[in-house]
Amino acid sequence: MFKKNRLALAFSMVFAIAGNAVASESIDNKKNSELDHIHAYSEIVIPQLVPVLYESVSPTGGDAPLLLRITALLTNAWFDAIAPYHETAVGVYSKIRRQPAKKRNSYRHMNIATMYASYQVLSNLLPEHEDKWREMMQKAGLNPDKKQINQSTAIGIGNLAGLAVVQARQNDGMNQLGNDDVGAGTAYADSTRYSPVNTAYEIENPSRWQPNMSEHRYGQYSIQQFVTPQLKDTKPYSYSHPSEFVAPYPEASQIENYVRYKAQADEVIQARAAITEEQKLKAELFNDKLTSLAQSGLDTTIQRGLGLAESIQYEFLSNMTTFDTAITIWDNKYRFDAVRPFSAIRHLYGENEVDYKGKPGENMHSVRADRWMSYLPVADHPEYPSASASFCAAHAKVSRQFFGTDELNWKLDYSKGSSTLESGVTPTQDISLEFATWTDFEMDCGNSRFWSGVHFKPSIGAGRQIGKDVADRTYAFVMSHIRGEAK
Amino acid sequence: MFKKNRLALAFSMVFAIAGNAVASESIDNKKNSELDHIHAYSEIVIPQLVPVLYESVSPTGGDAPLLLRITALLTNAWFDAIAPYHETAVGVYSKIRRQPAKKRNSYRHMNIATMYASYQVLSNLLPEHEDKWREMMQKAGLNPDKKQINQSTAIGIGNLAGLAVVQARQNDGMNQLGNDDVGAGTAYADSTRYSPVNTAYEIENPSRWQPNMSEHRYGQYSIQQFVTPQLKDTKPYSYSHPSEFVAPYPEASQIENYVRYKAQADEVIQARAAITEEQKLKAELFNDKLTSLAQSGLDTTIQRGLGLAESIQYEFLSNMTTFDTAITIWDNKYRFDAVRPFSAIRHLYGENEVDYKGKPGENMHSVRADRWMSYLPVADHPEYPSASASFCAAHAKVSRQFFGTDELNWKLDYSKGSSTLESGVTPTQDISLEFATWTDFEMDCGNSRFWSGVHFKPSIGAGRQIGKDVADRTYAFVMSHIRGEAK
Repeated sequence: MFKKNRLALAFSMVFAIAGNAVASESIDNKKNSELDHIHAYSEIVIPQLVPVLYESVSPTGGDAPLLLRITALLTNAWFDAIAPYHETAVGVYSKIRRQPAKKRNSYRHMNIATMYASYQVLSNLLPEHEDKWREMMQKAGLNPDKKQINQSTAIGIGNLAGLAVVQARQNDGMNQLGNDDVGAGTAYADSTRYSPVNTAYEIENPSRWQPNMSEHRYGQYSIQQFVTPQLKDTKPYSYSHPSEFVAPYPEASQIENYVRYKAQADEVIQARAAITEEQKLKAELFNDKLTSLAQSGLDTTIQRGLGLAESIQYEFLSNMTTFDTAITIWDNKYRFDAVRPFSAIRHLYGENEVDYKGKPGENMHSVRADRWMSYLPVADHPEYPSASASFCAAHAKVSRQFFGTDELNWKLDYSKGSSTLESGVTPTQDISLEFATWTDFEMDCGNSRFWSGVHFKPSIGAGRQIGKDVADRTYAFVMSHIRGEAK
Repeated sequence: MFKKNRLALAFSMVFAIAGNAVASESIDNKKNSELDHIHAYSEIVIPQLVPVLYESVSPTGGDAPLLLRITALLTNAWFDAIAPYHETAVGVYSKIRRQPAKKRNSYRHMNIATMYASYQVLSNLLPEHEDKWREMMQKAGLNPDKKQINQSTAIGIGNLAGLAVVQARQNDGMNQLGNDDVGAGTAYADSTRYSPVNTAYEIENPSRWQPNMSEHRYGQYSIQQFVTPQLKDTKPYSYSHPSEFVAPYPEASQIENYVRYKAQADEVIQARAAITEEQKLKAELFNDKLTSLAQSGLDTTIQRGLGLAESIQYEFLSNMTTFDTAITIWDNKYRFDAVRPFSAIRHLYGENEVDYKGKPGENMHSVRADRWMSYLPVADHPEYPSASASFCAAHAKVSRQFFGTDELNWKLDYSKGSSTLESGVTPTQDISLEFATWTDFEMDCGNSRFWSGVHFKPSIGAGRQIGKDVADRTYAFVMSHIRGEAK
């Protein structure tokens, strides 16, 4: 949850200036004039969106399928909204007339188009926060009630680009509207009729996924439902079908291969029992997609002083990349339906004790296997391959390609006790995490899923490979749109 | 969620006065002198507790097992703490020396004892809110660090009474400490190894309970776990074993009795399709135990001008009554494991349409049976008998006995749009709900579970009967402690 504070700090000045505009529906000229030079997407849209995402979509930033679709669609709308101001670029869902040379690359026009495109997409994806999106427009000195659609004004272009994304995407397979024939009739309900082989109560097949039961509030427990299994059937941007990227069969997760099954579970027990403070912080960092993925990308564009158009192109590239990766990862997860470590450990050792590291100060060195818990809360989808490992690898690869270097130099400072899972206790002193290269970022990200006990080792490699393979497609896809070669 | 506002209003004056005391650890003499005449339990403890309960235990006030145990244990501690100041009363878990005549019935001594008893119990039950309980003491001008235990000072008596309740109750069968051999090792985890016959995905046996799947956050669904099944094995106050109160076999819930099975489901479909605004508000009111039970009791003691000792005796009676009722109701729910209306309707009609009333303005008059939803969210435990009906009947009966009359005269005002489930829309104009008698209260409470689609009709009668039977025991139990006849 690093990002909230950092963004709050970074953009507090913008907020302070914008404060007065909020109450009024009319355009604030002072604020509006800032659109000549700021990056409205990062200085107004993102700071307005991020708290809503943490509050309403994912308190941990860890719920990837829903988060990544929102950021992919939003950055898509930005990309499409500024395409007509570029020399060659064409939008994905709207082919808007190229603007005259005098408007070309104008921050003012691109910012206004981006704001209206954002408003359209966010009102559609998170309609219960409509007041926030109106406030967002007012912070930019813009009137959210201007609904015109055309190919000649920034407002008209922004609305057009945003609505085209909404139109193309609201029935993309994710059941956003709850209007499929199969599901419960509510938003994002499962369209696949997925039903787990195991219950939370009993492991029928120890090779397969078991939903976890956990306390969701004081004394109340609930059981996981595989989150949006239909993500596997959702339309990717950059390839035809997720079956183009199938991971190797997870041999060691099959109980028939007992020796390997036990060995990979024992490996997780040992890693979890030996987890260090630094590993805990890395596990928390990479679990939070808004910080690890979105923030690392944004920081890089700022650090490198990218212009507005290039920044937005990179934002679309990196966010669409993880979304397209998620689709095929979900296809793989659905296909293999593989067991998580907590179930395998419970199955192997039952009520026997296994090595463990309790909370700091607890001096606890073992635990009954049926009470063993991963350091990170276990996510609500099958184990293989690791989604986080795939996202980080894909994100790293397109970043390397876009910036032409592996150099990253990303540094995060953690004050004593700033851990979210061991708040007030971990770390025992101020420390920093540094990622010199995208390769370091990608490796630590993948490995953190193993240290923290939510994944077996083979998942990490399998996830990374898929991420890299998808990255080649998404990079080509975005480049062809920037060059105007896309059909 | 009525109570929060009403209490906030009622006690804002107390808070305003107490405001300055909060920052300081020392005793505020001005505040402290108020203890000579106020009812500290209702003017300081309850206003501090209620927001915590809504925030951390039950946002809807509907999660009875956990709420009722907290209020039973807390009021028990009050009762025991003031017993030594009474002519004849004896505590349940502490038999403290009767205090000399000059202290007898002293508000000051009783208030101080009540505050320290509250502090002990709340620190034990809700330890993560320790700062709130310290603040609560400071609002009374009392020092939470005074830990003495004795039978001669109000502080010593309060601590003693509170700790005795904690001691007697923390291993009462609810697995509060997560220290049973069976459960997950976490607080209140199931100690019974309950496993439902049906999954959320498939109805194997249409007579039995099916956990519901619902969206718990944007696009994320989860599946119910029977909440604290071990409540059935928890020690009651006033009787030996819950099997003393077994409801009639729920014949109509058995699929073998197809005609009756279908008839009782059809009855629910029709009631839900015809639900009125007033019925919606009553359903919401009686779903919220903190308002319907706790608030009606508190309002009655105030309305009738009860003294401090009598008020506390009534509080313990009414709160312990619903807790003891809950224990046997859970035993019955576990025993019959009966199907909820949503499952029966789904089983009977599948994808066919049934009569329905959509949200106001939707003009929706039917829905696919597999998407039929009750007006109230369906609770996380089997259907038969109705817990709410039993609580209201028990609460009404002991109130009638204690006050010697059926008269209630409880009136609640609802402003336009103040519904929680249809916020901003229902009711379409300001209305009031009035309950002239406890009998009206009890009948509307029970029936509201049927109107709102969470219960079949036979559950209401069965629940009411058990509530009344338990009430006889709890009334006798409390009276024998007040008269000092209890062993």
